[in-house]
Formats: sequence, C-alpha cells, structure tokens
Amino acid sequence: MSKKAEMICVGNELLIGKILNTNAQWLARRVTSLGMTVNRITVASDDICEIAKVVCEAIGRKPKFIITTGGLGPTFDDKTLEGIAKALDRKLEINNKALKMVKEKYENYAAVGKLEKIELTPPRVKMARLPARSKPLPNSVGTAPGVMISYKGTIMVALPGVPPEMEAIFEESVVPLLKKEAGKLAFFEKSIFVDSIMESSLAPLIDEAMHDNPYVYIKSHPKCREEEPRLEVHFSTTMENAKEAEERLEKTVRQLSRLILKSGGKIRR
Amino acid sequence: MSKKAEMICVGNELLIGKILNTNAQWLARRVTSLGMTVNRITVASDDICEIAKVVCEAIGRKPKFIITTGGLGPTFDDKTLEGIAKALDRKLEINNKALKMVKEKYENYAAVGKLEKIELTPPRVKMARLPARSKPLPNSVGTAPGVMISYKGTIMVALPGVPPEMEAIFEESVVPLLKKEAGKLAFFEKSIFVDSIMESSLAPLIDEAMHDNPYVYIKSHPKCREEEPRLEVHFSTTMENAKEAEERLEKTVRQLSRLILKSGGKIRR
Repeated sequence: MSKKAEMICVGNELLIGKILNTNAQWLARRVTSLGMTVNRITVASDDICEIAKVVCEAIGRKPKFIITTGGLGPTFDDKTLEGIAKALDRKLEINNKALKMVKEKYENYAAVGKLEKIELTPPRVKMARLPARSKPLPNSVGTAPGVMISYKGTIMVALPGVPPEMEAIFEESVVPLLKKEAGKLAFFEKSIFVDSIMESSLAPLIDEAMHDNPYVYIKSHPKCREEEPRLEVHFSTTMENAKEAEERLEKTVRQLSRLILKSGGKIRR
Repeated sequence: MSKKAEMICVGNELLIGKILNTNAQWLARRVTSLGMTVNRITVASDDICEIAKVVCEAIGRKPKFIITTGGLGPTFDDKTLEGIAKALDRKLEINNKALKMVKEKYENYAAVGKLEKIELTPPRVKMARLPARSKPLPNSVGTAPGVMISYKGTIMVALPGVPPEMEAIFEESVVPLLKKEAGKLAFFEKSIFVDSIMESSLAPLIDEAMHDNPYVYIKSHPKCREEEPRLEVHFSTTMENAKEAEERLEKTVRQLSRLILKSGGKIRR
C-alpha cells in the first residue's frame, strides 16, 4: 500500500485565477512517481487563520507528508510560516541556521552588485523567522530557505512559490525524505488511445477489466466529443516490483484492448 | 464586502499530476471577475467518501456557492454526484428532465452517425441519476448535464471536467446566478512592472501604500531572482462603483510608484 501525502498551495493569486497552479501539478507528479499517494490538494488564501485552519485539517488526516508552496518571501502577505506556527501552537522565532543562510545570500548579492553591504532589514530577517524546532532547507536558486518540521508523525515541508526555487529545494532536500518513506514503492503507468467507441460504451469494458485486475486503476479521458470519440485510457498502479507492475499493466492493457476491438473500437498505442 | 465561493475539483488525474488544473484557474478568474471571492479550492480523489467529506467541509464554511468540476460522466470512476448525495443525505435518483436531456443527445448522435438507435444503457442513464431535488443544467457541448442544488443557503453547482463543457454550462447557467448574488460588485485590477529593486526592499513600501489605501490589495510577484530584480506588482479591489475603484487603484499605483522611484527602482506600466 502506498503512503499518503497532501499539498497546500498558499496564494491569493491562485484564488483569483491570476496564476495557473503549475506547482501543484509538478509536485503531484513528482511525489506520485516516488511511490507516495497524493490524497488532497488545497489552495488557501494569504490569511494566517485560513492557513492555520487548512494545516490543522490536513494534520488531522494524518498524512506522512504535508508539502506547502508559497508564502515564504519577505512581503507582508507571505504568511505561510505564521499560519503553520499558529496551527502547531509553536512560536515563530529567528532560526540561526536560516539567518546564516539569508545573510550569506545578501553578502553574495552585494558582491555581485559591487555594493559594500546589503543591510539585513526586517523583511529580510523575516525569511529566517521559522516555527520553533524547524529545520531550514537550503535554497540554491533564491533567497528564502525552505522549512521542514516534524509533528506527530507527519513531516511538514514548506517550499517557496517561485517554481524554480520550489523545484530545487524539493529535489535537493525533500526527495531523499520521500524515498526513505516510500521504500521500494513506485508508480507505473501506461496509456492507450482509443477511437470509434463512445466513452459510455467503454464504461462497462473498463468495469470488466478492473474487476479482473484489481491492482490496476483504469481511467478514460475524453479528448473529443461523445459522438466523435477519441479517448485516452490510462492504466496505473503503485507497487514495489517493477517487473510485476509492468506485467500487470500489460495484461490489463491486452484484456481491455481485446474488449475494445470486439466492440468496434480502434486502438493506437 | 464580496461574497464567498469555493471550488472542488474531483479527479485522480489531478492528484497524480497527469493533468494541469486549468479548470480551477478558469473558474477562479471568472468567478472573481463577477464580484465573488473564491475562498478555497480543493482537489479531491475519485472516491465517494472523500468527495462527500470535502463537500461537507465546504458546506460547513457556508459559502454562497460551491462549484465542483469533474466526475459527471458515464464511467465507474465518475462519482461526484454520488459523493454530493452522500454529503447531503439525499437519494441519488433518475431525474426525468436530465434523462430527457441525455436521451435527446443520443438520438442526435444516432442521427449524425446514421444509426437506427443508440441504446440508453446503464452508463448513459447514470448521467441522469442526480441527488434528489436537483436541477439539471443543459450541456450544449457534451452529454452529461450539469447539476444545481440548493442546500441550507448554499448553491451547489456540479460541472463536467472536460473544459469546453464546463465553460459552456458555466456561461449559460451559472453566470446569471452569480450575477444575481454579486449584484453590482465587480473585481478591478492593475499591474505595474518594476525593475532594479529587490522584493525585500519593496516590502516596506507596499506596507506603507496598503496602510494608506486599505481597500486595495497589493501583491508582488517576483519574475526573476532577488539579485536581478524584476517584479510584477498587482493591485486589486472588489467593489460596486467602477469609477471609484479605478480612482482608488490609480491613487495607490501613483503612491507606490513614487516610493519605488525614490528608492532607485524603475517602473514600466
């Protein structure tokens, strides 16, 4: 059985539709590929109480991982860490390791810009104010460190919203944690493309194939209209043994393909 | 004050990162532009209990609207209406108006395909099985009707996951409901693009401008790195009077622009 992860994406820009939530897709794909199951994704506003509520609710569902994106920067509306601190009833305090990371960044920016010094103003220090007992995660691309917190069996990871920063911290610091948790579990998938059969005619065939192959999840994705059918049929499974997974997927694909051809559908693989 | 709406996007394909959630962005932008405030977006799996839980939680927050996407089709994994029925403790039953809509679709597909008849098989009838006391919403693009349900002061709307179908039902049947609720409220926004000032240096200037313009929300979006700053600064407000909104936004843009220029930043409008 795979293990649960949740994502919380913080940002009014997502709730007004200004920004497409590519972070959620990127993370969902990576976390899934590492053998974990993403059970829920929640988008929350830049509001401390709202963030705290969403975090509390997620913790209540006892996932192994909660990954947040957004809200770690220097501006007033970057409230994720304050929200998490409130949810966990921990103080927000200057983390010395994080402060060192932030300080080194600005020393480096000063050197690049040939400036004598860039002051550690309150908005810059803010990026080093973490919930008590957090571990800062180095940000090799940007300024604000990521944050890791263990809480009642759940590992919480807060990542920045800027995609290259989020991706870098994830790959460098979060992937090892996920791999350790997932062990040998991995996600396997296959797709076939089907023409000339309506999704409603495919439905009972999928039922039959899933009944005979209970470890494989089959989902049809209409690419066109019911009356000019073009469908992607996606097969997936999460398990330890790659060879066995391949065999199971292949067996299921073959069975469903036979059923589709018998019903007059056409298949492109 | 603006009025609350929530979105629930149902689909394992979103949780494994196979599909980018463009529906959430499209809906968030449209709902916001109509003067409502989207408070939360939740992505849930194709699981009846999970859908029911997410719907119950959303109802508990008492938004005026809950809009769901996905899970209305003919296959076994289309479970949104079953989840909603469970959440509301209503029976799932054949809705005669919905059945008539589905029947007419297949009569039409038969005519187009020059077939004598397309049978109303169980997967096709399934698309007309709605929670009791639902109103089906015509789908001018695809087959499965949308669904509207009133429940304890909240209007729930279930839309298909296929984007053109979702968008068509939204425009034809949901926009009038939102407009009625929002009244004259509308969303107004403006952006300026700022170079040569770090986001951490901009932070206190935004604080000052927001303090003096409490109705305007200002958010900075870094487009590059802290040490080579390029930022979009986004100003928004939701209110009734368009002229007043424009004036408020313009006044805030002017004030922040002055502060930015004084600090050595450059502005492109």
